[in-house]
Amino acid sequence: MKDTYTLPSAADMHVHLRNAPGPIASLVTPTIRPAGIDTVFVMPNLAPVPVTSVDAALEYKSALEAIDPSVNYLMSLYLHSSITPEEIANAKKAGISGVKAYPKGATTNSQWGVVSFEPFDEVLKAMEKEGIVLNLHGEVPSDSKEGVTVMNAESRFLPTLRSLVGKYPKLKIVLEHCTTGEAVEAVREFGEDVVGTITAHHLSLLVDDWSANVHHYCKPSAKSPEDRRALLQAVVSSKGKFFLGTDSAPHDISSKKGKGNTAAGVFTQPYALGYVLKALEEGIARGDISDSDVTDEALAGFFSSYGRKFYGLPPSDKKILLKKDGATVEESLKSEQAEIVPYRAGEKIWSVEWL
Amino acid sequence: MKDTYTLPSAADMHVHLRNAPGPIASLVTPTIRPAGIDTVFVMPNLAPVPVTSVDAALEYKSALEAIDPSVNYLMSLYLHSSITPEEIANAKKAGISGVKAYPKGATTNSQWGVVSFEPFDEVLKAMEKEGIVLNLHGEVPSDSKEGVTVMNAESRFLPTLRSLVGKYPKLKIVLEHCTTGEAVEAVREFGEDVVGTITAHHLSLLVDDWSANVHHYCKPSAKSPEDRRALLQAVVSSKGKFFLGTDSAPHDISSKKGKGNTAAGVFTQPYALGYVLKALEEGIARGDISDSDVTDEALAGFFSSYGRKFYGLPPSDKKILLKKDGATVEESLKSEQAEIVPYRAGEKIWSVEWL
Repeated sequence: MKDTYTLPSAADMHVHLRNAPGPIASLVTPTIRPAGIDTVFVMPNLAPVPVTSVDAALEYKSALEAIDPSVNYLMSLYLHSSITPEEIANAKKAGISGVKAYPKGATTNSQWGVVSFEPFDEVLKAMEKEGIVLNLHGEVPSDSKEGVTVMNAESRFLPTLRSLVGKYPKLKIVLEHCTTGEAVEAVREFGEDVVGTITAHHLSLLVDDWSANVHHYCKPSAKSPEDRRALLQAVVSSKGKFFLGTDSAPHDISSKKGKGNTAAGVFTQPYALGYVLKALEEGIARGDISDSDVTDEALAGFFSSYGRKFYGLPPSDKKILLKKDGATVEESLKSEQAEIVPYRAGEKIWSVEWL
Repeated sequence: MKDTYTLPSAADMHVHLRNAPGPIASLVTPTIRPAGIDTVFVMPNLAPVPVTSVDAALEYKSALEAIDPSVNYLMSLYLHSSITPEEIANAKKAGISGVKAYPKGATTNSQWGVVSFEPFDEVLKAMEKEGIVLNLHGEVPSDSKEGVTVMNAESRFLPTLRSLVGKYPKLKIVLEHCTTGEAVEAVREFGEDVVGTITAHHLSLLVDDWSANVHHYCKPSAKSPEDRRALLQAVVSSKGKFFLGTDSAPHDISSKKGKGNTAAGVFTQPYALGYVLKALEEGIARGDISDSDVTDEALAGFFSSYGRKFYGLPPSDKKILLKKDGATVEESLKSEQAEIVPYRAGEKIWSVEWL
């Protein structure tokens, strides 16, 4: 790899900014643009009320623009029984980009989520017709009778992905935050309307890392060395099938190490691109990928053009400069109301500069 | 299951009491006997200096007796290059019961542990001759190049168990804290000189439980519902092949949730028998075992007679009475120097009374 890369400005197609206005959003949203990112796909799983209407999504967008107007916020709805086919048509007119489906009970704020996709048939057909993306949290909830744990929850979801593609062949689908070789293979089975996002942290973390460190615990959880290798290979051989969606998930430090119970999520927003580059370096050192795989074209595609194209946006005409070890990850982001510990706190990381 | 059981007093064949005198030992040691247990096999992985000589083991034993003289402490050495065949003969004369082998880097205070058993050939032959037990922490260290994680570290160790049994056919071996169906099967392959201990917490915990809770994280880590079922079945169908070794591992609360990094270990000493009974109840409710499997004979064997017999002790002639929901697990054990959070804090649990 080189020590510097000049690339088009990036798009992060899976971010959690939390309620806005609000203490976490105020800390996190201003870190997007300095990280070399000008476009983000914003998750709708707010609590206590998720974003289930066009009005709520537009209000949320305005509140984010009030924090930083220089970012293009792609908004989403939370798939919920209150959403009608008419609301999907309204969403299209209002510029909403996608609808996120959370399996009930699988992750943070998924208590209003989906048990079965069957009741959503008309909504899914409307999405297929309007070109609204279906964003899948691809896990089934843990269930000891069925033998489902955090380790196989994604694999067990893949039959549902295949069935959705079969039933709605023109529906645009993102399998969010792929964590397994099996998920990567499943995404590759289909055409250009079925893609996967890959986070920064799953390119370096393994099950061992989160077993002993609350800041590394997330859903879907990081898995085996073989799975990590498949993800790294997917990044450099994406050809449009995989692009960046960090699933950056800020939690106040009190939720991470309060009473033993730990909120799921790794916070990566301010250093997202650097984490990916560092993971690629480490992957080369381990022999998971080869140095020649990491081309400017592969990086520009994964960070910027593939995601924009999938969501119908033009390519970026702005440039950023990444420099190896040009920055150090902060120990925490702090305000009077919140403290968030970023991934790899204290480590050297790639810096980002707008050109 | 019944609401009360009258059983022989119990033996816990795998306990961590930490340095004595010391703040953790002072808190934990006095909880052994009220828990219905009069005999414990004490682990030698003290820090900064593990127990590698007969003198150190006897000194440690005296220090524990100074805290509570009513418990029979079976002592062990830490398998280490400084141990000679002569020291094994001395250990036998001094009444030392076993030698614990820690794979280097696999768990708490294993930094002085074993990389390969080959350099220990003469020591193992001496143990075989003297009837000193080999206690195995049955995991290989995590290694991403080899695809080893906390999830398959025990399975990957089983070939080593098989090779040790082949090479030292009369050596008495305990595969400590079995966590997988594969480990249970491996122990069953051999005769009465190869047994397994099973902890209280692995009869209820799964990977999901420790993923989000630092107090549930331990080594070996809890695994799948299928593995848990195999452990529950091993308890009730032991016939001497499996007995209680809680691996109760007290850590001060600061090591559990200090800086994100979490010490491995679940603290179960004061309620060990109750946790097992509660796990059996839950196993019956899930259909993992049947109610008729939980006989007085099976409980007396697993809690008391099988372990004593393996270590060459007579059966207990004392009795204890266990009562369902007769107690509540404390939120924490506290002194001025330490605070330890027990497993299932705040829950109703079986009480223990000496008869």
